[in-house]
Amino acid sequence: MVCQYGEQLEKLVKEAEPYAAEGKVADYIPALAKADQGILAVSIFDGKETCFSAGHSTEMFTLQSISKVLTLALALMDHGEEVVFDKVGMEPTGDPYNSIAKLESLVAKPLNPMINAGALAVSHLIKGESTEERLERLLQLIRKMCARPSVTYNREVAQSEFNTADLNRSLAFFMKQHRIIDENVDQLLDFYTKQCAIEVDCDDLARIGFVLANGGKNEEGEEIIPFEIARLVKTFMVTCGMYNSSGEFAIRVGIPAKSGVSGGIVGAVPNNIGIGIYGPALDEKGNSVAGMKLLEALSSYYHLSIF
Amino acid sequence: MVCQYGEQLEKLVKEAEPYAAEGKVADYIPALAKADQGILAVSIFDGKETCFSAGHSTEMFTLQSISKVLTLALALMDHGEEVVFDKVGMEPTGDPYNSIAKLESLVAKPLNPMINAGALAVSHLIKGESTEERLERLLQLIRKMCARPSVTYNREVAQSEFNTADLNRSLAFFMKQHRIIDENVDQLLDFYTKQCAIEVDCDDLARIGFVLANGGKNEEGEEIIPFEIARLVKTFMVTCGMYNSSGEFAIRVGIPAKSGVSGGIVGAVPNNIGIGIYGPALDEKGNSVAGMKLLEALSSYYHLSIF
Amino acid sequence: MVCQYGEQLEKLVKEAEPYAAEGKVADYIPALAKADQGILAVSIFDGKETCFSAGHSTEMFTLQSISKVLTLALALMDHGEEVVFDKVGMEPTGDPYNSIAKLESLVAKPLNPMINAGALAVSHLIKGESTEERLERLLQLIRKMCARPSVTYNREVAQSEFNTADLNRSLAFFMKQHRIIDENVDQLLDFYTKQCAIEVDCDDLARIGFVLANGGKNEEGEEIIPFEIARLVKTFMVTCGMYNSSGEFAIRVGIPAKSGVSGGIVGAVPNNIGIGIYGPALDEKGNSVAGMKLLEALSSYYHLSIF
Amino acid sequence: MVCQYGEQLEKLVKEAEPYAAEGKVADYIPALAKADQGILAVSIFDGKETCFSAGHSTEMFTLQSISKVLTLALALMDHGEEVVFDKVGMEPTGDPYNSIAKLESLVAKPLNPMINAGALAVSHLIKGESTEERLERLLQLIRKMCARPSVTYNREVAQSEFNTADLNRSLAFFMKQHRIIDENVDQLLDFYTKQCAIEVDCDDLARIGFVLANGGKNEEGEEIIPFEIARLVKTFMVTCGMYNSSGEFAIRVGIPAKSGVSGGIVGAVPNNIGIGIYGPALDEKGNSVAGMKLLEALSSYYHLSIF
Repeated sequence: MVCQYGEQLEKLVKEAEPYAAEGKVADYIPALAKADQGILAVSIFDGKETCFSAGHSTEMFTLQSISKVLTLALALMDHGEEVVFDKVGMEPTGDPYNSIAKLESLVAKPLNPMINAGALAVSHLIKGESTEERLERLLQLIRKMCARPSVTYNREVAQSEFNTADLNRSLAFFMKQHRIIDENVDQLLDFYTKQCAIEVDCDDLARIGFVLANGGKNEEGEEIIPFEIARLVKTFMVTCGMYNSSGEFAIRVGIPAKSGVSGGIVGAVPNNIGIGIYGPALDEKGNSVAGMKLLEALSSYYHLSIF
Repeated sequence: MVCQYGEQLEKLVKEAEPYAAEGKVADYIPALAKADQGILAVSIFDGKETCFSAGHSTEMFTLQSISKVLTLALALMDHGEEVVFDKVGMEPTGDPYNSIAKLESLVAKPLNPMINAGALAVSHLIKGESTEERLERLLQLIRKMCARPSVTYNREVAQSEFNTADLNRSLAFFMKQHRIIDENVDQLLDFYTKQCAIEVDCDDLARIGFVLANGGKNEEGEEIIPFEIARLVKTFMVTCGMYNSSGEFAIRVGIPAKSGVSGGIVGAVPNNIGIGIYGPALDEKGNSVAGMKLLEALSSYYHLSIF
Repeated sequence: MVCQYGEQLEKLVKEAEPYAAEGKVADYIPALAKADQGILAVSIFDGKETCFSAGHSTEMFTLQSISKVLTLALALMDHGEEVVFDKVGMEPTGDPYNSIAKLESLVAKPLNPMINAGALAVSHLIKGESTEERLERLLQLIRKMCARPSVTYNREVAQSEFNTADLNRSLAFFMKQHRIIDENVDQLLDFYTKQCAIEVDCDDLARIGFVLANGGKNEEGEEIIPFEIARLVKTFMVTCGMYNSSGEFAIRVGIPAKSGVSGGIVGAVPNNIGIGIYGPALDEKGNSVAGMKLLEALSSYYHLSIF
Repeated sequence: MVCQYGEQLEKLVKEAEPYAAEGKVADYIPALAKADQGILAVSIFDGKETCFSAGHSTEMFTLQSISKVLTLALALMDHGEEVVFDKVGMEPTGDPYNSIAKLESLVAKPLNPMINAGALAVSHLIKGESTEERLERLLQLIRKMCARPSVTYNREVAQSEFNTADLNRSLAFFMKQHRIIDENVDQLLDFYTKQCAIEVDCDDLARIGFVLANGGKNEEGEEIIPFEIARLVKTFMVTCGMYNSSGEFAIRVGIPAKSGVSGGIVGAVPNNIGIGIYGPALDEKGNSVAGMKLLEALSSYYHLSIF
């Protein structure tokens, strides 16, 4: 077990922290821009206790793209693989996460659920009579994973994201034209931006990662996500979880992980631990610079690579 | 002058008419789908009288993409070249008219005003406090060109187009994200679909073509469009007026022309005649099959190619 | 006729000359790099006499891409339209001249004969038992157009181009794989680089332009190129003659023209004059900066636009 | 350990075999076309003995794209990560393995070493004075992995591949133009086609897979490939080992694997077993149809997924 080497972990965090200076906080909405560039926080959960947390590990941040893995899990629980993968592919892509060009060349079906187009198509599938009901269902899932009933979303962030989501609207209308989605685009965007604005801290992420690592069960053995879906989600985290750095990340780190532009990263080491990281300074691909460095150090020191 | 060969013209129309069988009427909205596939009509205007019209030359149809040349003329009259070509390029493209991929690779600026993205960017520039005012200003221009004060738009067609314009919404939101346009997308779409739904007949188109052919002046010598703008518009008609058949059309016909999916084509032979054609059966690129055949025959018989 | 305004022409040249400072001489082979950046020369031929030449109008330079229009003419004379346009398309493209991406998406057929891929496919069609025989046939055509039997190619330039033609080899092998061409690639490249290295001066270019302008006949009425082929070639010069500035050039100048990276431009004003220009300083698209400015001034002053 | 369930394995092979009927043997060269479409063979090596082999497991076939993982390992042993990944990227791609379009948009650097362009760039790096020496060095590595000193290449297949390698020549010249490679293209192609023509059987592949699975060491603990390089290679096998089905394969199977158009697949289950499969009937992406079905069944039955 990892936790007994607490001092070593602290040391790894200190070594990774300075890399934050090489990154840049996301600034396309004010709520993200005001994050503290220098922060690096981490929590690790092994199913018994949060055995380590460094830095501002109780700082709240929004899930952003990390929500994509959770919405995917819920959509698969709602509909099964056949329906979901009729709307979205399974292949990684060398294109940026917000690319629209590939949609045009490939019969309009997004290549995978981790790029924006694919995530919109997946969100579209979430069951519920209203945005509120769909969001509540997603929140219920996340609250169970986090074992924290108070998880909710940040209204200010959601509103800001909604107001600046023109590229996502463009992707959504393109898919509506090609019948990948058939609901009102602004309704879908409302749901999508709210799910991106769900707030967590590093402890929450570590617990989410643990459930995925642990075959979908929480530390008490309760199944929150079916085993097959938890595995499928981890696979996507490896092949396309870190935007178009996923290939390099798999080589350097080898841990199923998903990042968001808020600077969060969730990691899930199969049959082992969950990891939550927060470091808002991003590289040009949109991943936390210091967070990736820390994950690389953790993987190397504790032999966490799946390869 | 062309008109004295009336019988020959009638013969050319009869020869071109059967090609309509090879095409297919646009059917993405009901109003277009009910057009009579076999029709081929033509009017020619030399500034004196409509010297020839064959078939259902008083059949009304909507401008559709033909409106792009007129909106471009009005935008240039409203703002001048510098402002307009800051929003839209001047280069032809081998891509289909509704392509979005090129937007992504080329700093989001549409390649030319004859593809949908470019036409939306141009429509965005039309001055007016409201959609009604912008549309009225465009209609005033067209009424002067047609010398028919009753020109207006077809509400049913406009509404149908608006309801099915998701691909254009996608293009518009993409450009909004990249600050090519900055108005409300549905407001722009409202204006855009109404301008596409402006109704004319072949005589109207022939007069529109004549004004462009005649350096922007009508048959009485009144300047409706400045000379330089009329020339510029004719240039775009040659390089990109017939969708991604423009290159072949320039070779086979050599007349500045612009087509629409309603089956209309306007032709403008510089310093000579205007031509209006209506033949709703389209080829797979979106051009009137019989209409193009007729233009090829006219060009060959009367030596109308500019090359 | 243009020639009587000789002093005015001289003035236009002087005004355009300074724009050479904004360009850059091609330097991918030594023979081109040693050109004198500041030069601007022009010749105009009206079928009677070379009525004007300014600057170093007898300076020799290589045809480079200008050869594409002449090879196209010869291929059409050798095989007719059907065979040629089975190998190469007729559509302009917004891509750079050396792009390979479009080949992949469009069943490997080059979009038009003015981009490198298309020109290679056209050269492949030129009849002849050997490279020497094919080249000799092309030279015979050019000598007749120039009325100068001594026209030949520059061996040093041809050899340099051959040695650095890896991108053209890439295009050729791609087309060989897709059966657009089926000859030995280095043999084709040998012929292609020699035709690009054919040397002319401005007077030669003006005479070449005149034959194209004059429906394929020289000043004595002798048919050198069939009328239809001369017209077809002029059409390509308008839609794709100036690389991916062709659209803007058509608007600003409106003269069928073809440029080469040596800095030459041939212009053909239908039923009027031929123009030869040499100005080796190029813009980033590969067109002579001062040469284009001069053509714009000539077109404006003498009303040469075909639109 | 897997081997004790021999009968169950036989049963899985029998169940997968019929899927061969859905595929098609590669036929671009005669030597591949004559393969027996219905064959399905498998070997598994756990470091002690080949514990199972079914069907024609001693049938010889050529490595084809499977060689890419071995050349990558050798290039990394020759030069280290920095040099290799200066020439080739680490990111998966949704494009087909032989795509050239991405080269154009991404500063000419191939996205990863598993697509043809990337594999050519990697082969270029293999040390050796001559093709023979480079090939011998690669064969030495493979012979050690297979523990079979007689491993060599099939001259007829190599020659056929060389003769039909125009697309690879196109890719190579494109990269030569952009200075990714700087050797003679036909020399590189000679080496490349010979490495693709190296012949193995299922037992050989199972042993190759075992060495990769076992951190680079053979069953006697001898290091054949450094641990870090073995891990890196397995990572590429997951993210891009099965052409543009890699994402789906990771989900359905979850075993690092690499396929070739001969119908071979090598699998490497980390810290567990090596798998060799041969089934020449391919799906449209180029992977063995029955082979993939068998791997899916093996993974499911023996819980071999790394996720």
